[in-house]
Amino acid sequence: MNIGIVGLGLIGGSLGLDLRSQGYRVLGVSRQVATCEQAIARGIVDAASTDGQLLETANLVFLCTPLGVMETTVKAIIPHLSPETTLTDVGSVKAWVVNTLAPLWPNFVGGHPMAGTADSGVAAAQRGLFQDAPYVLTPTATTPKSALEQVEKVVQSLHVRIYHCSPEEHDLAVAWISHLPVMISASLIAACVQEANLEVQLLAKALASSGFRDTSRVGGGNPELGLMMAQYNQKSLLRSLDTYRQQLDHLIEAIAQSDWATLQALLEQTRQTRSAFTTNPH
Amino acid sequence: MNIGIVGLGLIGGSLGLDLRSQGYRVLGVSRQVATCEQAIARGIVDAASTDGQLLETANLVFLCTPLGVMETTVKAIIPHLSPETTLTDVGSVKAWVVNTLAPLWPNFVGGHPMAGTADSGVAAAQRGLFQDAPYVLTPTATTPKSALEQVEKVVQSLHVRIYHCSPEEHDLAVAWISHLPVMISASLIAACVQEANLEVQLLAKALASSGFRDTSRVGGGNPELGLMMAQYNQKSLLRSLDTYRQQLDHLIEAIAQSDWATLQALLEQTRQTRSAFTTNPH
Repeated sequence: MNIGIVGLGLIGGSLGLDLRSQGYRVLGVSRQVATCEQAIARGIVDAASTDGQLLETANLVFLCTPLGVMETTVKAIIPHLSPETTLTDVGSVKAWVVNTLAPLWPNFVGGHPMAGTADSGVAAAQRGLFQDAPYVLTPTATTPKSALEQVEKVVQSLHVRIYHCSPEEHDLAVAWISHLPVMISASLIAACVQEANLEVQLLAKALASSGFRDTSRVGGGNPELGLMMAQYNQKSLLRSLDTYRQQLDHLIEAIAQSDWATLQALLEQTRQTRSAFTTNPH
Repeated sequence: MNIGIVGLGLIGGSLGLDLRSQGYRVLGVSRQVATCEQAIARGIVDAASTDGQLLETANLVFLCTPLGVMETTVKAIIPHLSPETTLTDVGSVKAWVVNTLAPLWPNFVGGHPMAGTADSGVAAAQRGLFQDAPYVLTPTATTPKSALEQVEKVVQSLHVRIYHCSPEEHDLAVAWISHLPVMISASLIAACVQEANLEVQLLAKALASSGFRDTSRVGGGNPELGLMMAQYNQKSLLRSLDTYRQQLDHLIEAIAQSDWATLQALLEQTRQTRSAFTTNPH
């Protein structure tokens, strides 16, 4: 079976490494000649090209480009695909992707492998990146069953935890646990630098330790990723932010009113409920 | 030189281990007989007692109890102290502590070693806990110079980074980098469980990974600590929360208005400024 990978960055490159080790023949397409050469040299792909014609013999194609160029990329490769070819993507939002790409290519299945590192690019590709990670598939009423089964079979070989849901449910869920944390974490950093007393600001910087480091980590990450979340998952993210702001207001009110019983009950509850989010089922 | 430690938990116990290894004679006081016995057995103290009389020969006393019992503890040990004895504390807020204890014992120096683990109690005490950590001292206009020098000399032997500031400056700084993170992190957990669609909430729990885990960590911690921060640093914390809420509102407004240029600029700035808080001077 021939598998095409379009976009040979961290995710596309890591997919190539694992799929080749499972015995699949992997065909890589990148806009950069240097990336193609590096992918071949590292054993990420069996063949690579900047020309979509390489995908002519692909049975399944993983679209691994940034969200912003997915639509133009699909339009560019379509002339080279066999009508039976299944197309899937790895984008971190799903409703926009499925609504945009399924009309262009009926044999399309939305997907989201939830793994990554702080690095990017083909040089960051690594074996086993997806091991034990969630891999969400978002078929709709119009997704061909054969296409879904083909994607599932290949994805299962990565030893991931597969979840099925609608594109909309996926986007609501990741708004809570991935996109909202980025925004509240960024707001923490933005707030701290508002301190007008420079002595206090210097002291705060010197004293910041693991608590600040952890809480601010995702808010100090790649701005392009944060921007992408807001642009492509705007509605679900705003819904989460609105609920978050209400909870924050409850907490501020309890502190302002010296209502320690309410604050204690709230903090007891957050300690208890956090574990449900941090002990993933396997 | 004899050093008294009142309260043999994680901080008091770890201080005992390090100070004894520096050659100081360490006298421990705890309310629990079992804690005294454990402290002696582990070599945390040279002698231990539930009776403050043990502190009669102490030149310097570290007060390591929870904030809530500091005042009554100081009143209980005062009858046993020599007038020249210096008293210092390890509490994580300073204005309330200094305002409460300095009038009871003039030879008082407020202090805050910023180290810890997720564990507590004498069993959690460990060597080298304070190595390279900040240790804030908060002398005031009425703090005797000799008392400050004595605390500095002993604290320096722990290989910490000593900072001096007013109790109020300390409380403003820790509000930003320690107490505010707890409140915004707790609000994240409280918000996520508001999701009314149970399918989505289950999915969110299953998909939560390192981003959620890090951002929610301090908000899912010990409720007593969060409550203490709010009770004893109420004014500074409310000031930080108010600024945080404004920054959050700016960000929500940018997303709601699809003002991507503003959002991108904000996220670029948070990425750049975070490093100033996470690369501490040594």
